[in-house]
Amino acid sequence: MPEIRQNLATKEWVIIATERARRPEDFKTRRTENKLPARSDTCPFCPGNEVNAPGETCVISDENGWKAKSVPNKYPALQADGDRTRTIKGIKRYMTGVGIHEVIIETPVHNTTTALMKDRDVEDIIRIYRERYIALSEDERIELVTIFKNHGESAGTSLEHPHSQIVGTPVVPQHIRLRIEEAMRYFDDNGECVFCRMMKEELREKERIILETDCFVSFILYAAASPFHTWILPKRHTASFGKISDREVADLAKILRTTLAKMYYGLENPDFNYVIRSSPCDIGESDSFHWYLSIMPRITKTAGFELGSGMYINTSFPEESAKFLRGVKI
Amino acid sequence: MPEIRQNLATKEWVIIATERARRPEDFKTRRTENKLPARSDTCPFCPGNEVNAPGETCVISDENGWKAKSVPNKYPALQADGDRTRTIKGIKRYMTGVGIHEVIIETPVHNTTTALMKDRDVEDIIRIYRERYIALSEDERIELVTIFKNHGESAGTSLEHPHSQIVGTPVVPQHIRLRIEEAMRYFDDNGECVFCRMMKEELREKERIILETDCFVSFILYAAASPFHTWILPKRHTASFGKISDREVADLAKILRTTLAKMYYGLENPDFNYVIRSSPCDIGESDSFHWYLSIMPRITKTAGFELGSGMYINTSFPEESAKFLRGVKI
Repeated sequence: MPEIRQNLATKEWVIIATERARRPEDFKTRRTENKLPARSDTCPFCPGNEVNAPGETCVISDENGWKAKSVPNKYPALQADGDRTRTIKGIKRYMTGVGIHEVIIETPVHNTTTALMKDRDVEDIIRIYRERYIALSEDERIELVTIFKNHGESAGTSLEHPHSQIVGTPVVPQHIRLRIEEAMRYFDDNGECVFCRMMKEELREKERIILETDCFVSFILYAAASPFHTWILPKRHTASFGKISDREVADLAKILRTTLAKMYYGLENPDFNYVIRSSPCDIGESDSFHWYLSIMPRITKTAGFELGSGMYINTSFPEESAKFLRGVKI
Repeated sequence: MPEIRQNLATKEWVIIATERARRPEDFKTRRTENKLPARSDTCPFCPGNEVNAPGETCVISDENGWKAKSVPNKYPALQADGDRTRTIKGIKRYMTGVGIHEVIIETPVHNTTTALMKDRDVEDIIRIYRERYIALSEDERIELVTIFKNHGESAGTSLEHPHSQIVGTPVVPQHIRLRIEEAMRYFDDNGECVFCRMMKEELREKERIILETDCFVSFILYAAASPFHTWILPKRHTASFGKISDREVADLAKILRTTLAKMYYGLENPDFNYVIRSSPCDIGESDSFHWYLSIMPRITKTAGFELGSGMYINTSFPEESAKFLRGVKI
């Protein structure tokens, strides 16, 4: 019998489709060997091609040159100049597309990926995330800062060189506001953060845990929307990613890289997105919300049912997926 | 300068990315010629292969045999037997996956698609939608009935034979509840249905209209989430698709087929999903909600930004897309 599971924090329902369920190893993407060069003359992110790229907003270097850096997106979805003027004309509501859109170039090496980097290198990337997160949050026109990474074609990447993106938007989308409100409601009813509660129970039950470190827990969601849908939560209650400490930056690098490496080897380099969900800038710290990093491997497709109902059909068992990843040696 | 547009009915924000905008004709998929046979021995939906398919729940025939029919899904996401027992254990909330999942086999012909059918044949399909919609709604365990179609691989189809699906779920997902609540709020404030208002203004402005018939209007959304994102709205205020009249069934067949044909010829057979959004079974008719059919061509990919923020980036101008489709001769 299929199960319909609810995510306690987001209130989203997911159908765990037992009739269609596949074993964790059936989700392997059987990606062919990496045939990319370590450097590409035509890649705007490779060292030496900077002439085609806008100036840096943050850079981490060693004696050999830059190791990771952030730059303005050359084709930004939003533009840094201007005010967030709102216009209302009948059904038409719009505002000028003011905002900040930057790219984090994660490494000078063209043909690598997070899973294959050193923890220390991933730490540099997360330090840039923090610095730019704080800078974008301080712009008074920005209401929400979203950090995300697209890996692979089905995850929406157009450039192969390892990179992630940060976007500051002048609105808090309803999708996020809803999560904030649900978390407030849970706090109202129970006097505790719903994410802290989820983490505690996951650590007690253990069956969906992928990995635990000093400061973080990574686990497959009980109501995972798709196979291997994973959350990484900081153990210390913090609502804003901007508050991540140095020690947590190093620890997040470790758990993120290791979790992605388990997916890389276990599922053979699947396409994925990850995103850092943090409280809106106006809220900052709060007792009810908790920032987290969500990883969504793109190994199945969403179709009309998902688009139409907002419910998801997951053809894997979260408990089996977590057990499988725990067993992957890296 | 990019524009951030809001959908008045759903309150969703969309970035119309002017810097990245493409012309309507740039979205052509350049699909190669249809090389499928008119009948396939291995297709479970082709006439003569019924031995492998479950029994019919509704069938429309003529002297040559069946023209369109509905059957239970052989691999249902939800199961028809059992009660919707809900269990709460700590963070784990689930209910038994009771529900109804049927497939509508749209035609005996293996290698056709809605755009290439006769209006009269599409009418048969919509008559089956109505009949099964009403039947599923009457099951007291069902809270919401969703009808959808996946066309093409990137829209999530696994079978080529033209078909659509109908799913009755024992919950109203938050995604739908939110839309119902927003519509109620608009009605509260303005004393009119927000969808009726949108339709009136679209008909007055004309620039996003694709087609108007006696009973329906098809238009590209002002805040289209992706290129060519289209709504077809009935002119008569009705909240439940189950209330569609015979005259409207025939008229919907015409506007749906013609709209899809304009996309088929203008964009060269793009993959797409469509979905019929109707009020939850418990609500039925209401002054504030309005059923509609939403078409989403799958010609761009959603990535980490969309997954993370719930905002969409659209690289086309809705007004240009509508003008382009109006000009497509079929």
